[in-house]
Amino acid sequence: MSRGFKVAIAGATGAVGDAMRTILEEREFPVEEVRFLASHRSEGKKLTFRGEEISVQVLGNDSFRGIDLALFSAGSAISKEFAPAAVKAGAVVVDNSSAFRMEEDVPLVVPEVNPEEIANHRGIIANPNCSTIQMVVALKPLHDKWRLSRIVVSTYQSVSGTGRRAMAELEEQVRSWVEGKKLECQVYPHPIAFNCLPHIDVFLENHYTKEEMKMVQETQKIMKLPNLPVNATAVRVPVMVGHSESVYAEFEEEVSSEEATLLLKEAPGVEVVDDPGKNVYPLAIDAEGKDPCYVGRIRVDLYNRRALSFWVVADNLRKGAALNAIQIAEELIKE
Amino acid sequence: MSRGFKVAIAGATGAVGDAMRTILEEREFPVEEVRFLASHRSEGKKLTFRGEEISVQVLGNDSFRGIDLALFSAGSAISKEFAPAAVKAGAVVVDNSSAFRMEEDVPLVVPEVNPEEIANHRGIIANPNCSTIQMVVALKPLHDKWRLSRIVVSTYQSVSGTGRRAMAELEEQVRSWVEGKKLECQVYPHPIAFNCLPHIDVFLENHYTKEEMKMVQETQKIMKLPNLPVNATAVRVPVMVGHSESVYAEFEEEVSSEEATLLLKEAPGVEVVDDPGKNVYPLAIDAEGKDPCYVGRIRVDLYNRRALSFWVVADNLRKGAALNAIQIAEELIKE
Repeated sequence: MSRGFKVAIAGATGAVGDAMRTILEEREFPVEEVRFLASHRSEGKKLTFRGEEISVQVLGNDSFRGIDLALFSAGSAISKEFAPAAVKAGAVVVDNSSAFRMEEDVPLVVPEVNPEEIANHRGIIANPNCSTIQMVVALKPLHDKWRLSRIVVSTYQSVSGTGRRAMAELEEQVRSWVEGKKLECQVYPHPIAFNCLPHIDVFLENHYTKEEMKMVQETQKIMKLPNLPVNATAVRVPVMVGHSESVYAEFEEEVSSEEATLLLKEAPGVEVVDDPGKNVYPLAIDAEGKDPCYVGRIRVDLYNRRALSFWVVADNLRKGAALNAIQIAEELIKE
Repeated sequence: MSRGFKVAIAGATGAVGDAMRTILEEREFPVEEVRFLASHRSEGKKLTFRGEEISVQVLGNDSFRGIDLALFSAGSAISKEFAPAAVKAGAVVVDNSSAFRMEEDVPLVVPEVNPEEIANHRGIIANPNCSTIQMVVALKPLHDKWRLSRIVVSTYQSVSGTGRRAMAELEEQVRSWVEGKKLECQVYPHPIAFNCLPHIDVFLENHYTKEEMKMVQETQKIMKLPNLPVNATAVRVPVMVGHSESVYAEFEEEVSSEEATLLLKEAPGVEVVDDPGKNVYPLAIDAEGKDPCYVGRIRVDLYNRRALSFWVVADNLRKGAALNAIQIAEELIKE
């Protein structure tokens, strides 16, 4: 790759695509040329990048000629169909979908946790699931010190994780509720306004959802702990942006909340927000538009000195998706 | 007690007081006379009971003359001040506050779990915390079979648990959001609309909240497992009525989800709602106004055959408060 890079975004018009554009600008990623790709529906739509209006092109097998870096965020089916074409055209793909994450020759990377894996790519680098990323960023410094032995996690995930249509559905339902109208459901099978859905992605035969299994398998792969016991319950809540997680982590050695706090304060990508006496703890509405994984409510289990509970919150569109992908790209161009 | 009972409700104008009136009617509790008590603010307010309008009286030490049963739901301070007067006047108090729950000579009762404790009362019977009740109703049949050894629970609690003012605050914030106005906070320290607050009741020195410690200590007392390790994270979510909980329960023996489901189907006070393939699982909005504790997402831990995860939802104003109190009273009058 040269001084400036030719970058394509597949899924440029989505919620994550939006965040990718903003973050490429904010971080002054060395973009020489940018190509915005989406479905026929968005053809010709204008998107602004560094003050310039750029027309969205229809994503196809010929979309990647001359491209150095292709950021994919248009769902698994699209990634499976078009990522090989991007690689063939000579691009490195950073894929935000789950299409390739668990393939053995595809690095699954969170730059704060396992940046060394990037070097092993064969054209595709996978960006983990949003709910996994923020958890492993917080767990990494604790694992380095005490070695993880078990995770039990319950999530409080915002609708933006599903995409723009889900955000519109929550807004519509809230408006209907205010007006005393019936709540209409298109994206989710039940109303999400004033409700919590213990259901993210599809249900699998083992009674877990695919989202829950992503948290299990991706955490094991990223942390290089293939047998780590992870138990996840993934829940959608009526929040627009920002995922929160209640994490119970057990380690091989005794832990202390003071030391955990110090380790987290020094950890890359983490900001400790933990002064409960002053009502200070991480909140989804504060994380929106921000980069760090915010960690608070850090406390040792009262009955197990090897276990720690904490609350971690991050902007799922940024650290959970677009930011992490661009951080991967930044590592990549250091090579 | 005679055929009909003289019943007082202290805190009659609150959200739980409301539910108490409705449930006394619904269940045809043998009420001979009813007395509605509240603060000066509500003096003279008319409340309907069995089609009759009854004036609210100011709660005082003389309020309980002739009363057989006093249902308290006006907060700990009020219970501490006036419950002794009610007992002195000859009433049995069923107290919904946390004032007496952990006192050794006060039974803490969930009728599906430990009804035998009622007989040990000395005038006061305590109603447990809402988040504890629905969890122990679901755990009881499982514990009877496999013996509980550990609980890790994360809650998704509705604003009605805080009371009417909190419900109004969520409504106001949602209206302001729709109108593009700033969200005002009076009841909670941060906006609850489109947000999750890992903060219920006050923070204690051990970094847990009082709500979390209630779940620890009350569960131990009700289940008669004084050393049971319980780890709780209590979270307020933007839901009006209905608490949801993600429960991870470890037992002394290996479990199976099929057997757990059968045990729960036969358990009193439980309704199994668990057909994920058809998007059927317990939801707060479905539980509102209903009596059962709804259990679903029942599954065995993938790495620990002695552990089970499930999702339990109940109407916190009913089973979490008013209904449980009246069920206690029903047991009481069987004596």
